[in-house]
Amino acid sequence: MAAEIVNPRSDSETGVEGGADGTSGELFDPAFALHRGGKMAVQATVPVRDKDDLSLAYTPGVAKVCSAIAERPELVHDYTWKSQVVAVVTDGTAVLGLGDIGPEASLPVMEGKAILFKQFGGVDAVPIALATTDTDEIVETVARLAPSFGGVNLEDISAPRCFEIERKLQERLDIPVFHDDQHGTAVVTLAALRNSAKLTGRELGDLRAVISGAGAAGVAIAKILVNAGIGDVSVCDRKGIVSADREDLTDVKRELAGFTNKAGLTGSLETALDGADVFIGVSGGTVPEEAVAKMAKDSLIFAMANPNPEIHPDVAHKYAAVVATGRSDFPNQINNVLAFPGIFAGAMQVRASQITEGMKLAAAEALAAVVADELSADKVIPSPFDERVAPAVTAAVAAAARAEGVARR
Amino acid sequence: MAAEIVNPRSDSETGVEGGADGTSGELFDPAFALHRGGKMAVQATVPVRDKDDLSLAYTPGVAKVCSAIAERPELVHDYTWKSQVVAVVTDGTAVLGLGDIGPEASLPVMEGKAILFKQFGGVDAVPIALATTDTDEIVETVARLAPSFGGVNLEDISAPRCFEIERKLQERLDIPVFHDDQHGTAVVTLAALRNSAKLTGRELGDLRAVISGAGAAGVAIAKILVNAGIGDVSVCDRKGIVSADREDLTDVKRELAGFTNKAGLTGSLETALDGADVFIGVSGGTVPEEAVAKMAKDSLIFAMANPNPEIHPDVAHKYAAVVATGRSDFPNQINNVLAFPGIFAGAMQVRASQITEGMKLAAAEALAAVVADELSADKVIPSPFDERVAPAVTAAVAAAARAEGVARR
Repeated sequence: MAAEIVNPRSDSETGVEGGADGTSGELFDPAFALHRGGKMAVQATVPVRDKDDLSLAYTPGVAKVCSAIAERPELVHDYTWKSQVVAVVTDGTAVLGLGDIGPEASLPVMEGKAILFKQFGGVDAVPIALATTDTDEIVETVARLAPSFGGVNLEDISAPRCFEIERKLQERLDIPVFHDDQHGTAVVTLAALRNSAKLTGRELGDLRAVISGAGAAGVAIAKILVNAGIGDVSVCDRKGIVSADREDLTDVKRELAGFTNKAGLTGSLETALDGADVFIGVSGGTVPEEAVAKMAKDSLIFAMANPNPEIHPDVAHKYAAVVATGRSDFPNQINNVLAFPGIFAGAMQVRASQITEGMKLAAAEALAAVVADELSADKVIPSPFDERVAPAVTAAVAAAARAEGVARR
Repeated sequence: MAAEIVNPRSDSETGVEGGADGTSGELFDPAFALHRGGKMAVQATVPVRDKDDLSLAYTPGVAKVCSAIAERPELVHDYTWKSQVVAVVTDGTAVLGLGDIGPEASLPVMEGKAILFKQFGGVDAVPIALATTDTDEIVETVARLAPSFGGVNLEDISAPRCFEIERKLQERLDIPVFHDDQHGTAVVTLAALRNSAKLTGRELGDLRAVISGAGAAGVAIAKILVNAGIGDVSVCDRKGIVSADREDLTDVKRELAGFTNKAGLTGSLETALDGADVFIGVSGGTVPEEAVAKMAKDSLIFAMANPNPEIHPDVAHKYAAVVATGRSDFPNQINNVLAFPGIFAGAMQVRASQITEGMKLAAAEALAAVVADELSADKVIPSPFDERVAPAVTAAVAAAARAEGVARR
């Protein structure tokens, strides 16, 4: 039998090129074995064992339910799974660190996302990978799907298209539309920052933060930090600090320049970091140690690029009071799964029409509060497997939706 | 407590208008209780219990699987749920006997369909009710969704749009597109007709059949009967026999006139029934007993309108050797659930690019064969709960797909 599992080309990067049928390589990587046949299934939640079951769950019994919804459309939330199912929508253009790999190749990530929704938030989710990358076509398509879903989680759609797609969809639809790469990351980052400030005895209003990266995550983090009252936030792209005097700015970055960088800094990331309290990396570049050394004492360093943090934790720890990364093998992992399941669960529980900035701030606050009594430099954010997280976020988001007037029950 | 369940307006047609919140009426109808919260859910088929699970099912492990699919697109069938999940797509225009009730109100039927797929065929299915009734928009939308699904079951889309939508989609997509109201009904009808002919000692080629109804089901039944070698088939719409000399025919009916009605009959349904061997009702009208009386001796009457058969079984039995209906409370129920789960299961098992006429004929033959040894006038078709059905249909359809060259494994 041994001969069957020997793969002469097992050093292949993908692990699947070895066999003539392209499948023997999988034997060398548990990820392929795990993914065979996909990672999810549908199940009936009502019995379909006999004629009586069938005549209630299907014809003729179902007709009464259909008629009732036709007369009173809001009943769709009561008598279908609409209000508990999220469409996880992508066009496959910005998948993990892999970039534009297309809809089919993005499906394993979307399925993964869907099962995380279920596992962590009790929310059903369906992967929808679209065969178009055109902004208007994506908006049209998702708008046409909307009757079947209680929420739309946009995923791995490249910037700047992701901003316009989310905005246009939310304008058209009366269900929450949420680009997780933006807001999920922003919520978890803010939660970690709240606890880090508390731990080091600082007020949010006194912090000066520098964000490296002006893509989906960078823009959303900048917004939530400003809304949360961080003293000053500056954002750097590849060309340096995003400032109003630059003439190469896209619309999104021009808007960013309008509400960040109160200090009016210009120049490089190094200039921005001089004396800064907080570094937030969502860029994937590398920050030289000299620049890190110039940050304020007891700085807070969140170097979230995966798999290579912008500042390696070993370096960061020489200067920082708190270090967080995107990796699960270091403490303080900034992991979106801490946010999106509870955010959607809370929003859908009260049939919110959207996920407002107030709901995101409430989610961050609730997430931070989960570890309030256990705070340490290695625990400014809960573990993804902390079972207190989703209920806390869900409750906070539902309450905020009511307070903000977007709840419908 | 009794006071709580007394509904002063419990005679409401929908059963949901009684309470101030519109929900107390449901207490009077088990269908509403059953439908609360919907009828389905998503489940993970892989563990997500700890950090190690997460790093295989999601990042970083999933990235290798994505990269492999990006390099070799056909691997999407191996490493995602694509090849086992069907989109159940409607625009809500022809739902049961209720007509155009819109996408939201159609969802309970689509969920029902989805759980029947799972229960009877082991196929996962996702309800997609679209917020458009425009033919081209439906085609575009479904084509954009296609990367995520292994098949498309069109459902409750009104004629004649359903014909064009199915044709255009199948031309564009390399996964099966199947309008169940057409072909599911046609397959089960043919199976019942095969067994009825056998039971009464007749050859298919000797039968003259009359179909009442030239909508989705009528057209598809006419096609499959002709393809199966029924001697002659004529189709009647509200104006009588669809014949080439009529000047009021739509494109679809003109095509129908081209391959049916070899005898060149003109006139009313009554004229067509004179001496006919088979009546197939998919119209919802009523056939006068005098017309039934004029049919050939030992006729075969399939009066499938729901809930009121075109010819009541009590009347039909006076003249016919075999009587079938669409109702579960009479023998010989022509129920699509006998066909669609196995047809999709078989097609997707071999990754068929389409469901050909040959695959439909094979499905009908396999379905008929299930009860070949138990044939009686009350059993020309198996019960929907006969566990032999789906495996038999699945195997026959998979084999036919291979034989017809549309299988990809």
